[in-house]
Amino acid sequence: MIALELKEIPYDRIRAVEWENGRLKLIDQRVLPGKFEHLYFDHLPESARAITDMVVRGAPAIGVTAAYAVVLAARDRYAANPNNWRDAIQADLTLLAEARPTAVNLRWAVEKMRGLISAGISDDPVARLLEAAQRIHAEDIAANHRMGQLGANLIEPGSGVLTHCNTGALATGGYGTALGVVRAGYAAKRIKDVYADETRPWLQGARLTAWELVQEGIPATLIADSAAPHLMKLGKVAWVIVGADRIAANGDTANKIGTYMTAVAARYHGVKFMVVAPTSTVDLATHDGSAIPIETRAEAEVLNFGGTRTSPEGFRAWNPAFDITPATLIDAIVTEKGVVLNPTREKMVAMMSS
Amino acid sequence: MIALELKEIPYDRIRAVEWENGRLKLIDQRVLPGKFEHLYFDHLPESARAITDMVVRGAPAIGVTAAYAVVLAARDRYAANPNNWRDAIQADLTLLAEARPTAVNLRWAVEKMRGLISAGISDDPVARLLEAAQRIHAEDIAANHRMGQLGANLIEPGSGVLTHCNTGALATGGYGTALGVVRAGYAAKRIKDVYADETRPWLQGARLTAWELVQEGIPATLIADSAAPHLMKLGKVAWVIVGADRIAANGDTANKIGTYMTAVAARYHGVKFMVVAPTSTVDLATHDGSAIPIETRAEAEVLNFGGTRTSPEGFRAWNPAFDITPATLIDAIVTEKGVVLNPTREKMVAMMSS
Repeated sequence: MIALELKEIPYDRIRAVEWENGRLKLIDQRVLPGKFEHLYFDHLPESARAITDMVVRGAPAIGVTAAYAVVLAARDRYAANPNNWRDAIQADLTLLAEARPTAVNLRWAVEKMRGLISAGISDDPVARLLEAAQRIHAEDIAANHRMGQLGANLIEPGSGVLTHCNTGALATGGYGTALGVVRAGYAAKRIKDVYADETRPWLQGARLTAWELVQEGIPATLIADSAAPHLMKLGKVAWVIVGADRIAANGDTANKIGTYMTAVAARYHGVKFMVVAPTSTVDLATHDGSAIPIETRAEAEVLNFGGTRTSPEGFRAWNPAFDITPATLIDAIVTEKGVVLNPTREKMVAMMSS
Repeated sequence: MIALELKEIPYDRIRAVEWENGRLKLIDQRVLPGKFEHLYFDHLPESARAITDMVVRGAPAIGVTAAYAVVLAARDRYAANPNNWRDAIQADLTLLAEARPTAVNLRWAVEKMRGLISAGISDDPVARLLEAAQRIHAEDIAANHRMGQLGANLIEPGSGVLTHCNTGALATGGYGTALGVVRAGYAAKRIKDVYADETRPWLQGARLTAWELVQEGIPATLIADSAAPHLMKLGKVAWVIVGADRIAANGDTANKIGTYMTAVAARYHGVKFMVVAPTSTVDLATHDGSAIPIETRAEAEVLNFGGTRTSPEGFRAWNPAFDITPATLIDAIVTEKGVVLNPTREKMVAMMSS
């Protein structure tokens, strides 16, 4: 917990990832909202598995988790052989980086920690790496507070907004990206009505965004994903606000499956579309959206619900976890460095080097 | 069962509504595909309740069910008082017509039966009404076979198609409207790949369309509703094929929530959009889509899944069961009377009076 921040910012009471008594502590997001449980991790392989299995999810939260997982690996490797740990940890870092393919924050955090290891820290390296991980965590929260303000300022007072998936405290170091804008906008009375897509197949909206908003006391309304265009047609929302798993150099954005649906419908109805993500989500090495790998997850996530088979045996499913929203459908990309309106390659490069 | 038809038409093996030994027999669609069970009805009030509770759903199937329910009511009222039954049954007809608000086929069937009652059939009126109900049923199946051919002829050989909700044998007297086109198109090798939206919140696609296609041996792929635009972007489908709960005089079409989502996305991607419905679904008395009442169903359908609460206590939901697709987004309306391309009020009136 970053206690100092919590006193100053309203609607900021949840931390999905914590470092506690030398252990990585995660809220198990698979069982929310029915159960609120923490899991504890002492080693990197189990932490990587938790990322793959979506105990923790959300690109920035995965990045913070990965940073702490590197600390766990360094402690194990350093204890095993203080002279050889830098070589031995490389396999751990590779394993961790491959835990999920789409979110660039995971690779970003692993490479940041790898750079510190390579740089030759030798005086109590585990403590130094822990400091680095905690800095990544604190900076993510600070970035979210900043983005919350920047994003909220784009919204006319009294507006309705729609969000997709979960991009809140559970998906980040804390506070959230798109849901951080919802928190800040609601606090500032710029946002009046909040609608949340349930976000099939994993129901991040119905389970996680709803849970966060109930915790914070922010009223909101859940809808089936496919009702979003009908909601827009009725004039209920002025902005769609989403997060990102990776933003390419030209502004094309990979995010949870269904994001592209909301973007197409938003443009058709004259509703504005905002992407909120820290610069650690922007990958200038990815030329455009076509270069972003899209994770295809198990058919069972669509064929089943809560462990119960809902479709008949013998039926198949296609379960892409993400889709790509082209920059041309995005009105604003908000990072901690500022707002890019109508994003282009030139504007994105300028923002990143600012 | 209309046995004659079954021998001639491939992929036509399912009947959701039957008249058997003087009783109305319905497949309980609430428990498919996990259980395949029939429910039997001897009286109108329970039959109306079954429509409200979605034991049977789908606009044409509701119409056929309603026709048989009127036979049940006539039998009860005639037995109670053969001199007064025409007056006594009026309350039953009103109750039945209000079982669900959006589908016009329900009102259409009730008014058709009411007309026969008013016309003064006196020689064994229950038998005459049963003949009328069976004729409505048989004509619905024949219309579906005809629409299947007409719709399939619009599709280039080897195409991929996407359908939404369930518009098959379960939603009609038999064979289906949009799913009838899928059946006919698959039989004629015009359709190569079938994709089905799962259709939250009631999962008509995941449960019912999937069940029908497995029964018929037609391979298909289930997707989360919000993945449909991503599927279109990848070029996987040439047509979206949907049914209708009511078509207004100008071609605006009310159908299951999410239909409008697929229509907006189809237009954006240059994918064609086909509505398939019998003329009993067309209501020339409804000027345009804005005059169609949209049923809002219980929040619990979105907040829960299979009786288990998936979203946290205290959270609200909005659950419109239908949306309106404007005629401008529709490339073809297929009825048993023919195909209306790029529908307008003039073309719809001409088709209806042909």
